[in-house]
Amino acid sequence: MIKKEKYSAAILVIGDEILSGRTQDTNSNYIAKELEMMGITTSEIRVIPDKKNIIINSVNELRNKNNYLFTTGGIGPTHDDITADSVAEAFGVDLEVNSEAYDILKKYYKSIGSEFNEVRQRMARIPKGATLIENPISAAPGFKINNVFVFAGIPKIMKSMLDNSLGFLNKGNLIHTITVKVDAVEGDIAPVLKSLNDENENIKIGSYPFFNSEKDFGVNVVIKSLDKEFLTLTEEKFKIYLSKNSFNYN
Amino acid sequence: MIKKEKYSAAILVIGDEILSGRTQDTNSNYIAKELEMMGITTSEIRVIPDKKNIIINSVNELRNKNNYLFTTGGIGPTHDDITADSVAEAFGVDLEVNSEAYDILKKYYKSIGSEFNEVRQRMARIPKGATLIENPISAAPGFKINNVFVFAGIPKIMKSMLDNSLGFLNKGNLIHTITVKVDAVEGDIAPVLKSLNDENENIKIGSYPFFNSEKDFGVNVVIKSLDKEFLTLTEEKFKIYLSKNSFNYN
Repeated sequence: MIKKEKYSAAILVIGDEILSGRTQDTNSNYIAKELEMMGITTSEIRVIPDKKNIIINSVNELRNKNNYLFTTGGIGPTHDDITADSVAEAFGVDLEVNSEAYDILKKYYKSIGSEFNEVRQRMARIPKGATLIENPISAAPGFKINNVFVFAGIPKIMKSMLDNSLGFLNKGNLIHTITVKVDAVEGDIAPVLKSLNDENENIKIGSYPFFNSEKDFGVNVVIKSLDKEFLTLTEEKFKIYLSKNSFNYN
Repeated sequence: MIKKEKYSAAILVIGDEILSGRTQDTNSNYIAKELEMMGITTSEIRVIPDKKNIIINSVNELRNKNNYLFTTGGIGPTHDDITADSVAEAFGVDLEVNSEAYDILKKYYKSIGSEFNEVRQRMARIPKGATLIENPISAAPGFKINNVFVFAGIPKIMKSMLDNSLGFLNKGNLIHTITVKVDAVEGDIAPVLKSLNDENENIKIGSYPFFNSEKDFGVNVVIKSLDKEFLTLTEEKFKIYLSKNSFNYN
């Protein structure tokens, strides 16, 4: 029997541009996939506007309910970038000019021949007690405070910040997954899926129908387990059922 | 002065496959865009797992905080499709076999030569008092109960259900939007954005930097207002500033 070390995370996407539909969020999908590979379960993804009280309440709710919270967006230099202010307030700590961040930014703007003006200096303001997360692309750092990781919203920068944060995370037990693509409509295989799913609590089966055209449709059946051996057994059982009942699969 | 009729909506995406990163959710972006065009503001998007108590709590929280709630996912025939059950429980009403839905499904499965078996009959179970929303693709209907709209998760089906729901929605005042793409780094234009934004509460400015490569970067400045005339005035003011300060834009 595998000891189940379970770690959970929430992802908080901050930005009016996602809620208006102007921007398709892809950050949460990227983070969720990376976490899944580390055995960390994403319990919730929430998209909220650039409003201070909403950010504060969401940060406090989600960091208390999960082992980790990842936020994206709102750490740039403009008036609507209020994530750092809000996270500091959520933790009840001061937002202060972080000398390390200040030096990184000063050096960066000098190197690209731009002025390190007042609005850019805003990006050196970091909640007291936080650890900086490096941004190799445009210098302005993210940060980690307690179990909360604060990342930029630009996907390229967010990805590098996540890479630079993985070392802080505990790995859970890996969830093993196999996918069987079945030429069937969902209703035809629902009974066998239910019976396999109910057979053992160590297994979880999801079924995801796709419907590309009248001729190209089917169901992706995803079987997950912490126990690789048991997963293989269930897969075999399922495929025997499919063959017996004349369903094609791959 | 424009009378501000404000309508708000939340979107609840139900499905383990989104949280594991297996599937990139695009439904919420599609719904948010459609709502924006109707003058309805999306206040929150939330992605949650296929767990009954979480669905119930989220439905009740979000339907009470917003004029409308849209859910996607979890209304198929398999064991993990528990959205209808959960929504009924959230409203404290029975989940009953809806005779209209039953007839639609029976007819559909007859027409495609498939058996209308027990698991497919599950899809005729609809909360008491709900209104069906037509599904022209695979027959199994969505439904509307009070201010909650329950849609399928498959994008093609979800879109047709949304189309069939628009007639139920009140239109808010349209938000007018213009976007100016500026060849600048965000920190250079942050001060003027702040001053334009603070000038009048009838305007909202967002700035969205993009960074495709060392040579292709800039900022999309999005200016929004309920007042079209005022929007045009602000746009002109901004462009005069950009020209004076030698920023290219389009």
